[in-house]
Amino acid sequence: MTVNNRPLDVVILAAGQGTRMNSALPKVLHPVAGRSMVAWAVKAARELSARNVVVVTGHGAEQVEAALDGQGVIFARQEQRLGTGHAFICGIDALDNHEGADVLVLYGDTPLLRPKTLEAMLDDHQTRGSALTLLTGELDDATGYGRIIRDAHGDVVRIVEQKDATPQEEMVGEFNSGVYLMDSRAADLAHRIGNDNAAGEYYLTDLLGLYRAEGAAAHAFKLGDPDEVMGANDRTGLAELEAILRHRINADHMRAGVTLQDPDRINIEDSVKIARDVTLEPGVILRGQTVLAGGVTVGAYSVITDSVLEEGAVIKAHSVLEGAHVGAGADVGPFARLRPGSVLGAGVHIGNFVETKNARLDAGVKAGHLAYLGDVSIGAETNVGAGTIIANYDGINKHPSEIGAGVFIGSNSTIIAPRTVGNAAFIAAGSAVHDDIPEGAMAIARGKQRNIEGWSKRYWGGMRDKVQKKLPWLAGWLERQK
Amino acid sequence: MTVNNRPLDVVILAAGQGTRMNSALPKVLHPVAGRSMVAWAVKAARELSARNVVVVTGHGAEQVEAALDGQGVIFARQEQRLGTGHAFICGIDALDNHEGADVLVLYGDTPLLRPKTLEAMLDDHQTRGSALTLLTGELDDATGYGRIIRDAHGDVVRIVEQKDATPQEEMVGEFNSGVYLMDSRAADLAHRIGNDNAAGEYYLTDLLGLYRAEGAAAHAFKLGDPDEVMGANDRTGLAELEAILRHRINADHMRAGVTLQDPDRINIEDSVKIARDVTLEPGVILRGQTVLAGGVTVGAYSVITDSVLEEGAVIKAHSVLEGAHVGAGADVGPFARLRPGSVLGAGVHIGNFVETKNARLDAGVKAGHLAYLGDVSIGAETNVGAGTIIANYDGINKHPSEIGAGVFIGSNSTIIAPRTVGNAAFIAAGSAVHDDIPEGAMAIARGKQRNIEGWSKRYWGGMRDKVQKKLPWLAGWLERQK
Amino acid sequence: MTVNNRPLDVVILAAGQGTRMNSALPKVLHPVAGRSMVAWAVKAARELSARNVVVVTGHGAEQVEAALDGQGVIFARQEQRLGTGHAFICGIDALDNHEGADVLVLYGDTPLLRPKTLEAMLDDHQTRGSALTLLTGELDDATGYGRIIRDAHGDVVRIVEQKDATPQEEMVGEFNSGVYLMDSRAADLAHRIGNDNAAGEYYLTDLLGLYRAEGAAAHAFKLGDPDEVMGANDRTGLAELEAILRHRINADHMRAGVTLQDPDRINIEDSVKIARDVTLEPGVILRGQTVLAGGVTVGAYSVITDSVLEEGAVIKAHSVLEGAHVGAGADVGPFARLRPGSVLGAGVHIGNFVETKNARLDAGVKAGHLAYLGDVSIGAETNVGAGTIIANYDGINKHPSEIGAGVFIGSNSTIIAPRTVGNAAFIAAGSAVHDDIPEGAMAIARGKQRNIEGWSKRYWGGMRDKVQKKLPWLAGWLERQK
Repeated sequence: MTVNNRPLDVVILAAGQGTRMNSALPKVLHPVAGRSMVAWAVKAARELSARNVVVVTGHGAEQVEAALDGQGVIFARQEQRLGTGHAFICGIDALDNHEGADVLVLYGDTPLLRPKTLEAMLDDHQTRGSALTLLTGELDDATGYGRIIRDAHGDVVRIVEQKDATPQEEMVGEFNSGVYLMDSRAADLAHRIGNDNAAGEYYLTDLLGLYRAEGAAAHAFKLGDPDEVMGANDRTGLAELEAILRHRINADHMRAGVTLQDPDRINIEDSVKIARDVTLEPGVILRGQTVLAGGVTVGAYSVITDSVLEEGAVIKAHSVLEGAHVGAGADVGPFARLRPGSVLGAGVHIGNFVETKNARLDAGVKAGHLAYLGDVSIGAETNVGAGTIIANYDGINKHPSEIGAGVFIGSNSTIIAPRTVGNAAFIAAGSAVHDDIPEGAMAIARGKQRNIEGWSKRYWGGMRDKVQKKLPWLAGWLERQK
Repeated sequence: MTVNNRPLDVVILAAGQGTRMNSALPKVLHPVAGRSMVAWAVKAARELSARNVVVVTGHGAEQVEAALDGQGVIFARQEQRLGTGHAFICGIDALDNHEGADVLVLYGDTPLLRPKTLEAMLDDHQTRGSALTLLTGELDDATGYGRIIRDAHGDVVRIVEQKDATPQEEMVGEFNSGVYLMDSRAADLAHRIGNDNAAGEYYLTDLLGLYRAEGAAAHAFKLGDPDEVMGANDRTGLAELEAILRHRINADHMRAGVTLQDPDRINIEDSVKIARDVTLEPGVILRGQTVLAGGVTVGAYSVITDSVLEEGAVIKAHSVLEGAHVGAGADVGPFARLRPGSVLGAGVHIGNFVETKNARLDAGVKAGHLAYLGDVSIGAETNVGAGTIIANYDGINKHPSEIGAGVFIGSNSTIIAPRTVGNAAFIAAGSAVHDDIPEGAMAIARGKQRNIEGWSKRYWGGMRDKVQKKLPWLAGWLERQK
Repeated sequence: MTVNNRPLDVVILAAGQGTRMNSALPKVLHPVAGRSMVAWAVKAARELSARNVVVVTGHGAEQVEAALDGQGVIFARQEQRLGTGHAFICGIDALDNHEGADVLVLYGDTPLLRPKTLEAMLDDHQTRGSALTLLTGELDDATGYGRIIRDAHGDVVRIVEQKDATPQEEMVGEFNSGVYLMDSRAADLAHRIGNDNAAGEYYLTDLLGLYRAEGAAAHAFKLGDPDEVMGANDRTGLAELEAILRHRINADHMRAGVTLQDPDRINIEDSVKIARDVTLEPGVILRGQTVLAGGVTVGAYSVITDSVLEEGAVIKAHSVLEGAHVGAGADVGPFARLRPGSVLGAGVHIGNFVETKNARLDAGVKAGHLAYLGDVSIGAETNVGAGTIIANYDGINKHPSEIGAGVFIGSNSTIIAPRTVGNAAFIAAGSAVHDDIPEGAMAIARGKQRNIEGWSKRYWGGMRDKVQKKLPWLAGWLERQK
């Protein structure tokens, strides 16, 4: 943790439109790796233990505020777009009490900035007792950026915009990211920013001169990886941010002992936790509050959201899990769908084309093929036959069922909820179970079989022409029946 | 549109074998991004509003002609492979009337050439009143290509092949693409091309000298992007073309306001239309005449062909659609399969392991799990229970069914076509419906349930040894029954 | 084949821990492209027709030995980790008879080394009558590697480690891979290696000096592609090896006439055989002993393991096959699952959500939708209706069924094994078949339908409030029934 002597307020500038996103969604709400760009900034602020987090909204303000609702963020509207300096004033003025606090200015469209980097910057700022610290980066060619001009002590004296740069200044590779960390004077100084320039805008960069006019020294904190302050102007930029973030997250997991069979084709949101010796096959997507314990394997193209997989669970290819809990050593898929509220005990087997929803399956339950298990609890070792349907819906309401342990549910059975099936009951294949079944009983609820001999000859004989065209074997058989 | 003063004929050279493709398919028929390479050339010609399009075939001529059948193309066979000049003569001589027209020479294996580029070239050609315009490109190192030698006016005076180039000529980065636009003299001049060279072949490049001998000036039109004239010699080259085309198509969609969560893993054929604010998750494949309206989301790994998705429709992961129409706000999948003739109204819900084919589902119909709906129309708000099968096939013919609005189809029901089910009818779960159902009636077609108490004890007791080995809970239960 | 005059023994050093793999699995057991790294080395040794293959184990020795069990490999334990020279001695001393043989030293963590390269090295070694041949590579900048110092004749005189290199030696780009091929003196000479160095370890590189002290000349065999001796220190390195191997395998297939629609997204294990004019769509994964005949198409995201696909078979998107045999012209999927023992005849059709296991389906069988076919043989042209389940399991045992040719199995039928269904039998939809069916008979085993008029009005009327809220059409209908 950082040595954080003074409280910290964070102002996140998020008022821009982002015309080139070509979207009804404000630019800062576009998601990168499962989280909107502005939410990445809020997350970074939170990880710095910021006292206040102000988000300055403008374009699409209602949408942005709605998206961040309930996160304890203070919103400040920038009604007119009069420049970054003006946006900052809108933000800092929204604070009731900024006294004695440092203020960090972040942006709603730079999701790659690491909290760890900001923490180091904050340490540096407070350790050196800086008035103003600029976050900077270094590029071989910084064309287009504002360049950082330092004096002999290394203090920052000026920021030169591209259009104003002398040939010598153009050679400078250190650029201004726009992220500033300032002492509490910033709130007052910002009001002195003027707009006497071509665009008639208030520029936040002017704060540097105002601080220096006060006799305060400004320092720079240089990024190791200049990609951290990359923004996105259009959706190709968005895709690039996503790729960098994916690469970063995946490399971290690999170094921590997770096998990613093709990291370029695996998407893991940063909220996901993965233990050592997990194997992810190509195409796996892991989202939300997903947790994978040691030894878990996730098969190709499976998509897992907000689910917990215990030690050694195996998810086979092409499975989709959401809000599920899978017990140790359970195996699921391929083509399984576990929906919210699915709780599978140890060693449970779920096979292909099986859906569970709000279903507790105790240890050792098997449901291997083509089944729908909704709103049901099933005891240990029960065998759910292929084609089993729990009919939990009456057109309006969902009803729960309880099925005991050691039950054998024959194939193609329908269990009409609400139903109770006792332990060790046996359901004959093809039954539509509409009464409860006592423990140890066998239930049979299907028609009796009749065989009608010679029927096929008449049936196919009635459409002999078509049979001859389409079904040569059957045509021959029909011929032989004469 | 171009200022197209003179009519345009296009000759596409497509006679080559492409030995290194290592294929029974002629080289020009190998597909790139869903369209054969020669079809890309034909498409480009069509977009230039060409009067005649001649395709010169040779190797695998029958296959090539069959593949392009019905597209209004004139075929010319090059029976002997005597060089590009000879191929061109075969093509141009196949035209009844070439009088007064310009002629453009294209190739059957350069699918990346943009129609827009050709249009600009045509504009330039006709505006300058050129006799011959060569399409050229510029590379840092053009080793291997024929170099363009210009005079002081910028006119093209010669094309120097690699083997004949002086050291100074080798430094020239401008290369000949082989694409020529010529006035109507080309047809006559081509017949003067000789074959007095090492290979004994007739070279189309010789036309430049012949035009110049007539006193006509030749101009070059330089490509912005030299990749446009890339060809493929083997399947690795084919894969490179596909990657470039994918990148180009995807970048266009992103700039137009479509979110591609990982553009390197999304395939969109160029015939697909996508509105703003559509989101495509990783692994999506869109083919053919697919149209996605605004706000549509397509989940990971879904494959959609020739389908229309209206405003806000959501296709979840792992769905396969072909020839389907999905209404506004409908949600489909995961693991859904919509086959041709599926027409889903607004707000329809299709869940996992559900297949529709030639099926009209009116607004609000729900089919959430494990169902087959074929040759059927279903009225608004009808609920299709899990495991429902429309038995539309009698072994030879498919039969249609009509199901009303507000119907409740209980789980695991079978509806044996042709069948009519009235509005607001109710089908008991597990029924095999073999008679029509009147409006508002309940149909029940299943066996009555009997419970046989004590049965399980006898059943499992009969194989006690195996139960003890495999099913410990049940073994314990059995023990307790004594 | 190589001119292999002398027998060859191979010593594979596989004792290292690989701490940075961060794994409970020893480093050499981590898989790359479906085979553990050490197994790649064993495979290379086998392809050189090595007489003896010794694997020197140490860290996780039991696991490594268990993993390679049954492959005819000799194991030598290196109980203490005293350096590569010591490991080699452990290995070579484990041989009863090494007399007169060459010895090749390989590593358990360089899976990219081509057998073909080793074969050429062996040829060179034996043709030149070398005492010691070092496998070397050339890099622009070989910083970190041991450099190869040659004399005027090109003989290798020294290997200089990075830390000992003079500035001039640092410029040398030729590096030592650590792979050595030596004559039979190696076994004795190795015992003379000392450990008088900072680490107190025995270094295998010292053999070079020992050979030279004997007056023997050492040669180098330089790799064309230095990537071949790449190792992996952590899982990011593992992923890089996998990517290189994938690229190599895929390029080979493409050159041999296989179309890979996006080679960066297709995984093919090196054991897979693919004929010309096969098409693989994006995301295909082929594993194990899979064989694809000419003209086969495999759809997007399908995963195929240990399966044989005959001429022209079509596997549609999202199918999973394991241990299956698919006949010529059969079509399978999308969303099909063929499990071990599935044998499909020519022209069989398997549709969506269908699972087969230990199932023989003769030519022309169709199972288009939602079915489970396990432990069954099905005769030609039989039609398996949607929702058909073979109930092969009684809770303990699996039972086989036999279904004849030309049978029509109605939708949603359950066939309770063991069952015999005669040729041309017809099963009514919705039947639970619990008796055998004679040839040509129709079996019907379901309840008779009753329609109860007016029932829906009462049913929905009983929950009118909820109907009004959730089902507007039905609420209106209910209203009209008054």
